Amino acid sequence: MTTAAAIAGRAPERAPRRISVLGATGSIGRNTLDLIGRAPEEYQVVALTANTDARGLAELALRHKAELAVVADPDAYDELKTCLSGTSVETASGPEALVEAAGRPAEWTMASIMGAAGLRPTFAAVRQGACIALANKECLVTAGQVFIDAVTQSGATLLPVDSEHSAAFQAIDQPACDAVERITLTASGGPFRTWSVEQMAAARPEDALKHPNWSMGQKLTVDSATLMNKGLELIEAFHLFPVEAGQLDVVVHPQSIIHCLVEYSDGSVLAQMSMPDMRTPIAYSLAYPDRMWAPTERINLADLKELTFEPPDEKRFPALRIAREALDAGARATVVLNAANEIAVRSFLQGKIGFLSISELVEATLERDAGHEQGDPHNLDEILVLDKIGRELAGALLPRFILK
Amino acid sequence: MTTAAAIAGRAPERAPRRISVLGATGSIGRNTLDLIGRAPEEYQVVALTANTDARGLAELALRHKAELAVVADPDAYDELKTCLSGTSVETASGPEALVEAAGRPAEWTMASIMGAAGLRPTFAAVRQGACIALANKECLVTAGQVFIDAVTQSGATLLPVDSEHSAAFQAIDQPACDAVERITLTASGGPFRTWSVEQMAAARPEDALKHPNWSMGQKLTVDSATLMNKGLELIEAFHLFPVEAGQLDVVVHPQSIIHCLVEYSDGSVLAQMSMPDMRTPIAYSLAYPDRMWAPTERINLADLKELTFEPPDEKRFPALRIAREALDAGARATVVLNAANEIAVRSFLQGKIGFLSISELVEATLERDAGHEQGDPHNLDEILVLDKIGRELAGALLPRFILK
Repeated sequence: MTTAAAIAGRAPERAPRRISVLGATGSIGRNTLDLIGRAPEEYQVVALTANTDARGLAELALRHKAELAVVADPDAYDELKTCLSGTSVETASGPEALVEAAGRPAEWTMASIMGAAGLRPTFAAVRQGACIALANKECLVTAGQVFIDAVTQSGATLLPVDSEHSAAFQAIDQPACDAVERITLTASGGPFRTWSVEQMAAARPEDALKHPNWSMGQKLTVDSATLMNKGLELIEAFHLFPVEAGQLDVVVHPQSIIHCLVEYSDGSVLAQMSMPDMRTPIAYSLAYPDRMWAPTERINLADLKELTFEPPDEKRFPALRIAREALDAGARATVVLNAANEIAVRSFLQGKIGFLSISELVEATLERDAGHEQGDPHNLDEILVLDKIGRELAGALLPRFILK
Repeated sequence: MTTAAAIAGRAPERAPRRISVLGATGSIGRNTLDLIGRAPEEYQVVALTANTDARGLAELALRHKAELAVVADPDAYDELKTCLSGTSVETASGPEALVEAAGRPAEWTMASIMGAAGLRPTFAAVRQGACIALANKECLVTAGQVFIDAVTQSGATLLPVDSEHSAAFQAIDQPACDAVERITLTASGGPFRTWSVEQMAAARPEDALKHPNWSMGQKLTVDSATLMNKGLELIEAFHLFPVEAGQLDVVVHPQSIIHCLVEYSDGSVLAQMSMPDMRTPIAYSLAYPDRMWAPTERINLADLKELTFEPPDEKRFPALRIAREALDAGARATVVLNAANEIAVRSFLQGKIGFLSISELVEATLERDAGHEQGDPHNLDEILVLDKIGRELAGALLPRFILK
């Protein structure tokens, strides 16, 4: 084949793939770079970013020969510069530099900046039209349709990395996706699955942080304990897949082996399973539409002996109902839900409110906002304004729930 | 759109689909016609065939307005003619008429004639190059590569209907099918899953016919009790899917909800589940690559509560090992395995031999045949000769195992 690449002496289709990792020092970022580091000749790392961990970022940038390293926190910039002085790695700092890094052309971008801070960089990555592996929940929970529209406009390929949504993506039979009757996300049930309401009322942060199966950040682990995590995932699934809210379901599956089940009109259910190791969904997104080898433990059902299932108890775990109601209420409500939940979880982790008050504060914030005349947000700026309103509302309601 | 069909006044792409059902009066055939009968305007039934049940065949041919009804047994022909006299349904009888019916052009053929009798008609259906829904095991177990070659040559689309193989077919991620590491078929374990060898030695036909989950013919039910059914399915899977024999596995799953699991190099497992109702895999084959609605019970995992798994016990159920050894030995051995098993199961059902002797007779037949200098069969005639040799060998060895 005579192509420019062949004439220039490069093997066609074998040029290293240009990839960026936004949120490189977090768990998803490190797992992504673990996979990439196993075949370094196949990748050219463009940009790596971190929030505050300049030393960790510098180390990853050197190891993976990144072109650019950006730390969001300006206070961490001096350390980053020092660590990378005398190397060929460019450095930058601050939110605008983060957006610039995300917009630098790459064929594949892992968008794993946690929280609302991930919105602008992920939108920037989408706008350059590449393949986006999405591990940031807020892009779908708060930006929802606005985000999906941006993906459609840019022609980017969106690959969910959350284990449940990666599972649904894998289990959707593309030629027959209009025959999907139901998508069921599984929930481990969290550390309080078998606790009574009275026990949960007295739960301390250290109780909530004992997740049975996954090792995650503190916010996510508390969200798993309230089941708000699953509520947010329902909202994400609504935006990702061709189903109505009423076609989304949750089942508690304490072993966390099956991640999602997709049911079809002919009675078939396709399910994706894997051991709880994020390298499986990351590898899926990295190799899509092919698959690559990943160094993960394989499932042995005879060793596991049983997989169990139970309905979620929305009395003890109201977050699931609250999230569904927000989804039904519309885009404004889901932004406020997410903002209030961040305030509530932080207050719980600071010992200011009790565990049950997390959901109570979120619900009170949504109720207070419900009468607002301003409707659903139409763009990222409106979403960020609403996010701020939600945080302020939750903050104003917080004193009601403060522990005596 | 201006097409010949549009000019002629027909809606394009809405002409009824021409379908045939070989083995119409059996359980698979009746379930297929149940689905077709729910949307009769979408189908034109070409040929229906049966072995001996002329009355049942005639009734189905009238209800579904078939063009042709063929009964294999010449002794049943008079009854078929009488039942269909004065109607527009053509009738015929005998093995050659069966082959002719199967070769009549149809866009989709259900090949559900059981046993070696299904070989010639199914090959005829394949030769006319249509979509073949395959429910006959012998085409793959005995004809194997010869059958796959015939499918490839004719350009037919082969869709397995066995619940396990339909499940594997659904769970294979086409763009990444070279990344399949393992295919695991599930086995219910049959009625003797928890029986001791001593108990099984005394098992009577009526014990073996109590299948816990599926309602099937007697032969298949006994094969489920010995696990030979699963051994034959391993051989089928070997021919259907891009894996080596060593990548095929069996796990006992008493609830029969998950039918097959396909494991990939990234640690993902895709599994297909459905309630035990053959209308699900039949509907899948009928609508492929789309999906159609089927009137089957939906899975509710919270109601099912648990799915359990255990390794197959090849000490108590040697048929699985015997089938694997035949697969490793080659095509000749799998023909002899199947033939000997038919003789053994029939002898057990007639009360001539004990339950454990089914596998013993099959293994003895394979051992007796192993030294034979004639190699693997190359065409259907050679396969049918070998099938006869296998039956004769098993018959000659049978007296050793006769119950006192």
